Amino acid sequence: MTSLAMIEAAAARLAGHARLTPLLNAPLLDRQAGRRIFVKAECLQWTGSFKFRGGWAALSAMTPAQRAKGVLAYSSGNHAQGVALAASRLGAPCVIVMPADAPAIKIANTRDYGAEVVLYDRARDDRDAIGASLAAQRGLTLVKPFDDAQVIAGQGSVGLEIAAQAAEAGVTSAAVLTCCGGGGLTAGVALALEARAPGLAVRPVEPAGFDDTARSLASGKRERNAAATGSICDAIVTPSPGEITFPILQRLCGPGLVVSDDEALRAMVIAFQHLRIVLEPGGAVALAAALFRQDLPDTVICTASGGNVDAGLFASTLQRFGDTPWP
Amino acid sequence: MTSLAMIEAAAARLAGHARLTPLLNAPLLDRQAGRRIFVKAECLQWTGSFKFRGGWAALSAMTPAQRAKGVLAYSSGNHAQGVALAASRLGAPCVIVMPADAPAIKIANTRDYGAEVVLYDRARDDRDAIGASLAAQRGLTLVKPFDDAQVIAGQGSVGLEIAAQAAEAGVTSAAVLTCCGGGGLTAGVALALEARAPGLAVRPVEPAGFDDTARSLASGKRERNAAATGSICDAIVTPSPGEITFPILQRLCGPGLVVSDDEALRAMVIAFQHLRIVLEPGGAVALAAALFRQDLPDTVICTASGGNVDAGLFASTLQRFGDTPWP
Repeated sequence: MTSLAMIEAAAARLAGHARLTPLLNAPLLDRQAGRRIFVKAECLQWTGSFKFRGGWAALSAMTPAQRAKGVLAYSSGNHAQGVALAASRLGAPCVIVMPADAPAIKIANTRDYGAEVVLYDRARDDRDAIGASLAAQRGLTLVKPFDDAQVIAGQGSVGLEIAAQAAEAGVTSAAVLTCCGGGGLTAGVALALEARAPGLAVRPVEPAGFDDTARSLASGKRERNAAATGSICDAIVTPSPGEITFPILQRLCGPGLVVSDDEALRAMVIAFQHLRIVLEPGGAVALAAALFRQDLPDTVICTASGGNVDAGLFASTLQRFGDTPWP
Repeated sequence: MTSLAMIEAAAARLAGHARLTPLLNAPLLDRQAGRRIFVKAECLQWTGSFKFRGGWAALSAMTPAQRAKGVLAYSSGNHAQGVALAASRLGAPCVIVMPADAPAIKIANTRDYGAEVVLYDRARDDRDAIGASLAAQRGLTLVKPFDDAQVIAGQGSVGLEIAAQAAEAGVTSAAVLTCCGGGGLTAGVALALEARAPGLAVRPVEPAGFDDTARSLASGKRERNAAATGSICDAIVTPSPGEITFPILQRLCGPGLVVSDDEALRAMVIAFQHLRIVLEPGGAVALAAALFRQDLPDTVICTASGGNVDAGLFASTLQRFGDTPWP
């Protein structure tokens, strides 16, 4: 179970290795939105997403002998890159099992960070069997994307930074919207804020059709999505909230929010125009909720969780929505 | 004449008002470039460029009576936005005289920051006459874009931050490449680094055909560009180096560097891919030099001076160069 002490320890191990990302805002964005919006720009993190924090936290908590044998991760992209870079910097061999239809840039970057990439077919292959066989052959340690106490602790360092940066900006009361897949970032941030900034209340945000966390929070048990793929927000699509993360979300988070794919794409354009940062669709859902949902307080802090997006998709998104009038 | 003390005083007035922008880098970028590259991301500054610093420094140095009468600036864009936001935050009326063919987003943003925008035709109208008449009628104080000791001091705060951030990253020797128009940023950064980080040597970067500073540094006198317009790097096109800035550049800077428009556009794409920041062409010339020029040291720090770019241009740039193989 992740505790504040574990988050603080993870943050200490990350110091000097992860980037302290800025909490951005912009007067024209606030004016358009009609509320104060702060954006925790984790797209500026190493590897382009917060996932580097969890990867580093998990690997740096292993014994040297464990690290020397190597690590394994399953990921459509951002977790892969985060674990791959952490492994390369910590000298651990690294195998990443990725779906063959993951964005090209994510596959290429994962290889460039030094990992061995094993591709599988989402429809036909059994990912877990492939991974289990590799792990058994080579003695690799699996680094789960969210359902792991050290990974949650690493992502929680985002929450410690938000608490400090919000205090510096004079913000003591706000909604903190998180881009939510399996809930690792959301749980980590919620635990950190519970201790350090209790006036900041976390609400997870998901894409429409893949709102397993929102439905789970509403029903009180872990619900599953009907489909496994089909969202443009590929980075934050998981079948259901995690076994470890869900009880944390249940205890600490407000109701989940849901945005459409087009709202996420428009948030990418607005982040481009007003904040000059690059977001991928899944990294823009929290900002989309801050922009397009009404039932939120005057001050909203959003995680902008990732910016690994193919140039073609970003270009077509700018062309579709670059001139769309507000709202 | 701008002194280190003036830069430190400007930085103190800017504290809590300007953003301390991150010094970004990325392992895959370094690997591709074959050198260590750090990027001072002033595109993340208020108003999307470093110009807010100079505007705030100039206005905050005025007497309250002067500010109450109001300020005037000529600018194709970034200086306009910087002065407009500084004026609005400091309660000063503000008139900006802009060419009618400036990028639409820059004109719109300048108005949104609360300034009165007066448009003129670059080919037909006498900008200075328009401004002089407005200034005389209303008692406005002109805020020059670069040839002003306080403006240079404000831009110099970028240099103080680079010195501190480079030291934190363990960098004691590097080339510092600046996007150079009239030389305000370059002069301010060079003065700050002379005092605080003498191992960091400044070299101005300009677009081909508008390399007045490079030619002036070579000849020893202020040279003029043949054309006044026609570069895609509109933000950093000036007729010649400033009267105040040039002697500073002459004393402190190495030879100027020149990049093609296509190199600037490719640097925008590479910043998108590896750093997840949005740069305008003029804000990308220093990174372009770091990527495409050979005669540079192992470690290079680039200013990424601005990110105010129309969605259409950014999209077409991604489409043209998104798949271009390195180099």
